[in-house]
Amino acid sequence: MASVSPLAPARFPDMPEIAGVRLATAAAGIRYADRTDVLLTLFDPGTTVAGVLTRSKCPSAPVDWCRARLKGGKARALVVNSGNANAFTGRTGREAAKFTAEIAAKAVACRPGDVFLASTGVIGEPLKAAAFDGVMDGLVAAAAPGRWQDAARAIMTTDTFPKGASATARLGKTEVTICGIAKGAGMIAPDMATMLAFVFTDAPIAAPALQSLLARGVTDSFNAVTIDGDTSTSDTLLAFATGAAAARGAPRIARGSDRRLGPFRAAFERVLKDLAEQVARDGEGARKLVEVLVEGATSKPSARRIAMSIANSPLVKTAIAGEDANWGRVVMAVGKAGEPADRDRLSIWFNGIRVAHKGARDPGYDEGAVSAAMKQQVIVLKVALGMGHGSDRVLTCDLTKDYVAINGDYRS
Amino acid sequence: MASVSPLAPARFPDMPEIAGVRLATAAAGIRYADRTDVLLTLFDPGTTVAGVLTRSKCPSAPVDWCRARLKGGKARALVVNSGNANAFTGRTGREAAKFTAEIAAKAVACRPGDVFLASTGVIGEPLKAAAFDGVMDGLVAAAAPGRWQDAARAIMTTDTFPKGASATARLGKTEVTICGIAKGAGMIAPDMATMLAFVFTDAPIAAPALQSLLARGVTDSFNAVTIDGDTSTSDTLLAFATGAAAARGAPRIARGSDRRLGPFRAAFERVLKDLAEQVARDGEGARKLVEVLVEGATSKPSARRIAMSIANSPLVKTAIAGEDANWGRVVMAVGKAGEPADRDRLSIWFNGIRVAHKGARDPGYDEGAVSAAMKQQVIVLKVALGMGHGSDRVLTCDLTKDYVAINGDYRS
Repeated sequence: MASVSPLAPARFPDMPEIAGVRLATAAAGIRYADRTDVLLTLFDPGTTVAGVLTRSKCPSAPVDWCRARLKGGKARALVVNSGNANAFTGRTGREAAKFTAEIAAKAVACRPGDVFLASTGVIGEPLKAAAFDGVMDGLVAAAAPGRWQDAARAIMTTDTFPKGASATARLGKTEVTICGIAKGAGMIAPDMATMLAFVFTDAPIAAPALQSLLARGVTDSFNAVTIDGDTSTSDTLLAFATGAAAARGAPRIARGSDRRLGPFRAAFERVLKDLAEQVARDGEGARKLVEVLVEGATSKPSARRIAMSIANSPLVKTAIAGEDANWGRVVMAVGKAGEPADRDRLSIWFNGIRVAHKGARDPGYDEGAVSAAMKQQVIVLKVALGMGHGSDRVLTCDLTKDYVAINGDYRS
Repeated sequence: MASVSPLAPARFPDMPEIAGVRLATAAAGIRYADRTDVLLTLFDPGTTVAGVLTRSKCPSAPVDWCRARLKGGKARALVVNSGNANAFTGRTGREAAKFTAEIAAKAVACRPGDVFLASTGVIGEPLKAAAFDGVMDGLVAAAAPGRWQDAARAIMTTDTFPKGASATARLGKTEVTICGIAKGAGMIAPDMATMLAFVFTDAPIAAPALQSLLARGVTDSFNAVTIDGDTSTSDTLLAFATGAAAARGAPRIARGSDRRLGPFRAAFERVLKDLAEQVARDGEGARKLVEVLVEGATSKPSARRIAMSIANSPLVKTAIAGEDANWGRVVMAVGKAGEPADRDRLSIWFNGIRVAHKGARDPGYDEGAVSAAMKQQVIVLKVALGMGHGSDRVLTCDLTKDYVAINGDYRS
């Protein structure tokens, strides 16, 4: 799509370099003309890796590759391409993944098992991995620190803006850095939420501790975002820790339970949440960012299921696109979630205005004020169930005719 | 919407009268101008009733009313209105339901507990049941057999055509009749599929046997239809058996396991399936009817969950709207269902043309033939999993910009 989402940040953030991470992009002509479509990221020796991958029962070849390689916990390179997902490509897909890792390993001078892969784009078409062969040596030669925006652009598909976020935190007495990039923008649902996201740090964190950070961090970030309830075959979130900050005195962290991780964990989760929100802000056809808050559920998982039922309801999402505070549809979505709820205790707010209270329309609400509130770009839809103390938060966007156009008119 | 669905039947079917059932409709001005919006159905004494109601945790007041009254198993009247769902209306909603039953009972000269209710339309607005008071005596006076089309029209909301179906069957040596009417057309998902459906027969079937017939019959009819994955607060399917055919020699059936029910059960299920298919054919904005067949699953429930995952996928449905045999999205939907599946055994057909085979694009398929097939009004999407012997079938429709317009632009 030509036009940038109205919900996009004003600009790509300034993001610092991370010692031990170098990036390069190239145009390999996988599918698109006149744009980059390959990202190579090089890691210094000693870099650890952790990952969360799609729970799809029909994952892509690169997802299978990463799942097998994550056990090793070490990474020297990451190769990402856009334009072709190398999913449902059978034996040739597995061979293409292996070949890609081999040519990268040769250029980088590492083992193929230390190369991680991700592909996004069309499903079912063979990926011509030979295209990487022509650009790999040039990518290695050109790799340089801090090229985050170039990297974020090279992995885009239907995204309308590149997505990046960074943070710093103290680890022991040393400041360490976290940078991440991500791409959406459709086929976005939990397990995982985004198709591809990569997070990098110079903190010296062993692979099991990094995995623990990631597994916990994903719950309220990427797994709390849904665009259309559809889950990709290619969803991949990888975290890489070069450990370069150890030379500046940062303590080496072996376990996720290490108390010294506190500030790092907070910063790490901030980066994940920031990236996940950008994915929601770039939902296909999105005109409004919708924050669904559920309070008073019997537990957090129950609140999550109710919030997801609301966030995935086509009727709720089309009403928000129509700027209608249609709380009747919210009641419907609460009811269909199958979780403990009592109609007569239910209250609903749109952007702070209570429109329904204890099982009926709130007699006091001002139609004009609600209409004005629904014209905002960000809609906070709060539901209080009055059943218990479980709460949760999920991000989504509205469902517009542009979503249908993007996903249905592309053949024209 | 002004225009009739392109998937509508050519005309409303000829449907016979059913002894013991009389119908009348009126314009009570609940919400619509210049159309009928109330249906009264009168049953002769001795009529039994069974029902399947929404599993929503936030059901409408009429659903609560019916659930409580079904235990009695007897019915003398059914009052249905369109325009207002009497859902999420709190105590006033319960009172409106009770008041409606009372004025009907008075006009019919029966107990309020023998009056069944259903309402469909806007959620959250108080239902002014006094409107029924003005038309009830006239409805009772006008009630006559065989007015199926008028009845089907009076209960429509966003439906673009009235829905009816009928069948006859032998019960013992006596021919008995089954007639049904239904309305959709959005907020349609299993548990239950349609918002409102009513089936009538002159067969003498006790309430528990009728309930057993209905519970079994709904599985592959209304519960196998999904438009948007959204479940109404008002979904109601009621069956009424007047028993009038006993006078012509039909045996009285006490139990659902009675072997003499065989031909009746088949005819009854044919009516349910016909009505359910009409609901799918009138899905909001639908341009194509989509039949999802899943074979080779590990069980029928597993096949159902996979079929529903496909049928509810916005990406699959927008692709079909775009006349694209995008089997990659089908793979995605199979994968996200979470059921046993093996990418490398998966095959996919669109209207009989195999496009994917054993984990990869079918090398033999003809793009031109597939493109032509996708222009059909009915799309049969078959998935063979190669895992076991479970199979199932689900009906849905495509997801078009008109769906978004119907559900998002109505305020304009």
